[in-house]
Amino acid sequence: MLKPIGDRVVVRAKTAEEMTKSGIILPDTAKERPQEGEVMAVGTGRVMDDGRVVPLDVKVGDKVLFSKYGGTEIKIGGEEYIILREDDILAVIES
Amino acid sequence: MLKPIGDRVVVRAKTAEEMTKSGIILPDTAKERPQEGEVMAVGTGRVMDDGRVVPLDVKVGDKVLFSKYGGTEIKIGGEEYIILREDDILAVIES
Amino acid sequence: MLKPIGDRVVVRAKTAEEMTKSGIILPDTAKERPQEGEVMAVGTGRVMDDGRVVPLDVKVGDKVLFSKYGGTEIKIGGEEYIILREDDILAVIES
Amino acid sequence: MLKPIGDRVVVRAKTAEEMTKSGIILPDTAKERPQEGEVMAVGTGRVMDDGRVVPLDVKVGDKVLFSKYGGTEIKIGGEEYIILREDDILAVIES
Amino acid sequence: MLKPIGDRVVVRAKTAEEMTKSGIILPDTAKERPQEGEVMAVGTGRVMDDGRVVPLDVKVGDKVLFSKYGGTEIKIGGEEYIILREDDILAVIES
Amino acid sequence: MLKPIGDRVVVRAKTAEEMTKSGIILPDTAKERPQEGEVMAVGTGRVMDDGRVVPLDVKVGDKVLFSKYGGTEIKIGGEEYIILREDDILAVIES
Amino acid sequence: MLKPIGDRVVVRAKTAEEMTKSGIILPDTAKERPQEGEVMAVGTGRVMDDGRVVPLDVKVGDKVLFSKYGGTEIKIGGEEYIILREDDILAVIES
Repeated sequence: MLKPIGDRVVVRAKTAEEMTKSGIILPDTAKERPQEGEVMAVGTGRVMDDGRVVPLDVKVGDKVLFSKYGGTEIKIGGEEYIILREDDILAVIES
Repeated sequence: MLKPIGDRVVVRAKTAEEMTKSGIILPDTAKERPQEGEVMAVGTGRVMDDGRVVPLDVKVGDKVLFSKYGGTEIKIGGEEYIILREDDILAVIES
Repeated sequence: MLKPIGDRVVVRAKTAEEMTKSGIILPDTAKERPQEGEVMAVGTGRVMDDGRVVPLDVKVGDKVLFSKYGGTEIKIGGEEYIILREDDILAVIES
Repeated sequence: MLKPIGDRVVVRAKTAEEMTKSGIILPDTAKERPQEGEVMAVGTGRVMDDGRVVPLDVKVGDKVLFSKYGGTEIKIGGEEYIILREDDILAVIES
Repeated sequence: MLKPIGDRVVVRAKTAEEMTKSGIILPDTAKERPQEGEVMAVGTGRVMDDGRVVPLDVKVGDKVLFSKYGGTEIKIGGEEYIILREDDILAVIES
Repeated sequence: MLKPIGDRVVVRAKTAEEMTKSGIILPDTAKERPQEGEVMAVGTGRVMDDGRVVPLDVKVGDKVLFSKYGGTEIKIGGEEYIILREDDILAVIES
Repeated sequence: MLKPIGDRVVVRAKTAEEMTKSGIILPDTAKERPQEGEVMAVGTGRVMDDGRVVPLDVKVGDKVLFSKYGGTEIKIGGEEYIILREDDILAVIES
C-alpha cells in the first residue's frame, strides 16, 4: 500500500457509475475540476512553521469531494487513485 | 450533507428571483463577480501557523455576499451550491 | 445592512459633485485609481498569524481616499458602495 | 489634511526647480523612478505578524528620496502629493 | 557518496523493468510526472522559521513515488539518481 | 548625505579604472550584473516579523560585490551611487 | 578574499578535467544545471524570522554539487568562482 508523505492523502476515484448514485452533479467545465472519491490513506499531518505536526482532518474511509487539479493520478491493479494534498479536498460527504 | 474542510464553507446560491428581492444590485462586469447566497455548512476553521484552529466568522443560515471566483460549483437535487473559502465571502447581509 | 468579513470595510463612493468640494484632485490615469468615500461599516478586524484579531484603523463615518482596484462595487437603493480590504484605504481625510 | 493608514506616508513632491538645488541627479530612465520630496504625514506604523505596531522610521519634515512606482499621486490646492508605503522610501536626505 | 543538504534526498530511479513488477502504473501524461525509486541518502532535515531542524519523514531504503519535476538528475557509475526535496516525494510504497 | 531606510545601503560604484586594480573580473553577461563598490551609508537594519531590528552585516567603508539589479542609481557631485537592499550585496572583498 | 553575506557561499567551479575524475555525470540539458565545485568561503548564516542566525551546513573545503542557476559567476586570477545561496547547493560529495 501507499503511505502518503506529510499532508498528502491517497484517494480512490469513484467510477462514473458510483458518482451518479450520490446525487451530486459536478460540472465538466468547473475551474477546479471537482470529483468524488474515498480516502484510502492519509499522511502523518501538516508540518507547521514551528515544527509541530497537525494531524489531517480527513480519515481513511471518508467519502470526499476533491479537486484533481494539484493531484497525481496513478493506477494500481486496475483501480484509479489520486495522491493529493488535504487542502485540495473541498468537503467530506456525510450520509 | 457536505462537511467543508478547514476554512471552507458551502453556500446555496440565490436564484435570480430571490436576488431581486434583496435590493442589492450586483454588476455583471465586476472583477470579483459577487453573488448572494445562504451559508449551508462551515468547516472547523482556519489552521494558523502555530497549529491552532480559528473558528470561522460566518455561521449556518447567514445571508452573504460572496465572490464566485475561487469557489467550486456543484448541484445537489437541482439546487446550485458553491464551496469556497471564508475569505471569498465579502460581507454578511444583516436584516 | 452589510457587515463586512474580517479586514474588509464597506465604503460609500462620493459622487462627482461631492468630490469637487473636497479640493482633492484625483488623476484619471493613476495606476491605483484612488477615489473618495465614506466608511459605512467595518469588519471585526484582521486575523494575525497567531489567531489574534487586530481591530481596523478606520471607523464608521471616516472620510477616506481608497483604491478601487481590489474592491467589489455593488448598488443598494441607487447608491454605489464598494467592499474592500482596509489595506486598500490609502488615507483618512481629516477636516 | 490626510492621515495615512498603517505604514503609508504622504510626501510632497519637489518641483523641478527645488530638485536642481539639492545637487542630486536622478536618472530619467531608472527602473524604480526615484524622486525627491518632503514627508507631510505618516501612518501609525507597520502591523507585524503578532499584531504589534512598529512606528515608522521617517517623520514629518524629513527630506526623502522615494520611488514613485507603488505610490498614488493626488493634487490638493495645486500641490502634487504622493501616498506611498514607507518601504518605497529609499533614503532620508540629511543636511 | 552524496550527502544531500537540508530537506533534500537522493533517490535511485527504478528501471522500467523494476517498475513493471510493483504493479503501479504511472501515466506518461501526468502533470507531476511521478516515478518510482529508492531513497539512497537523506539530508539533516528542514530548517523551520525559528531555526529548529525537523528530521525528514523518509529514510534510507524507503521505496517511494516521487515527482521528477523539481529534481536534478545525475548519473554515477551508470545508475541514474535524482536529488530532490522531500516535499516532491508523494508517498512511501509499503510492502 | 543620504541615510538609507531599514535594510538599505548606499554604495559608491567603482570606476572602470578602480575595478581593474582589484583583479576581480565581472562578466558583462552575468544574470545578476555584479559590480564592485564601497559602502557609504547603512540603514538601521532589517525589521523582523516580531518587530525587532537586526543590524546589517556590512558597515561603512566595506568594499563589496553587489548586484545592481534591484538598486536605484543616482548621481551626487559627479559620483555615481546606488541605493540597494543589503540582500543585493553578494560579498565583502577582504584585503 | 571574498567574505559572502548571510547565507551565501563562494564556490570554485571544477574544471572539465577535474569533473571527469569524480565519476559523476551531469546532464547538459538538466533544468537546474548542476555543477561540481569546492566551497572556498561561507557567510555567517541564514537570518531567521526571529532574528537568530543559523550557521550554514556546508563548510570551507566541502566538495559540492550545486545549481548554477541563481548564482553569480566571477573570475579572480584566472579561476572561475560562483557566489550562490546555500539553498542552491544540492549535496556534499563525500569521499
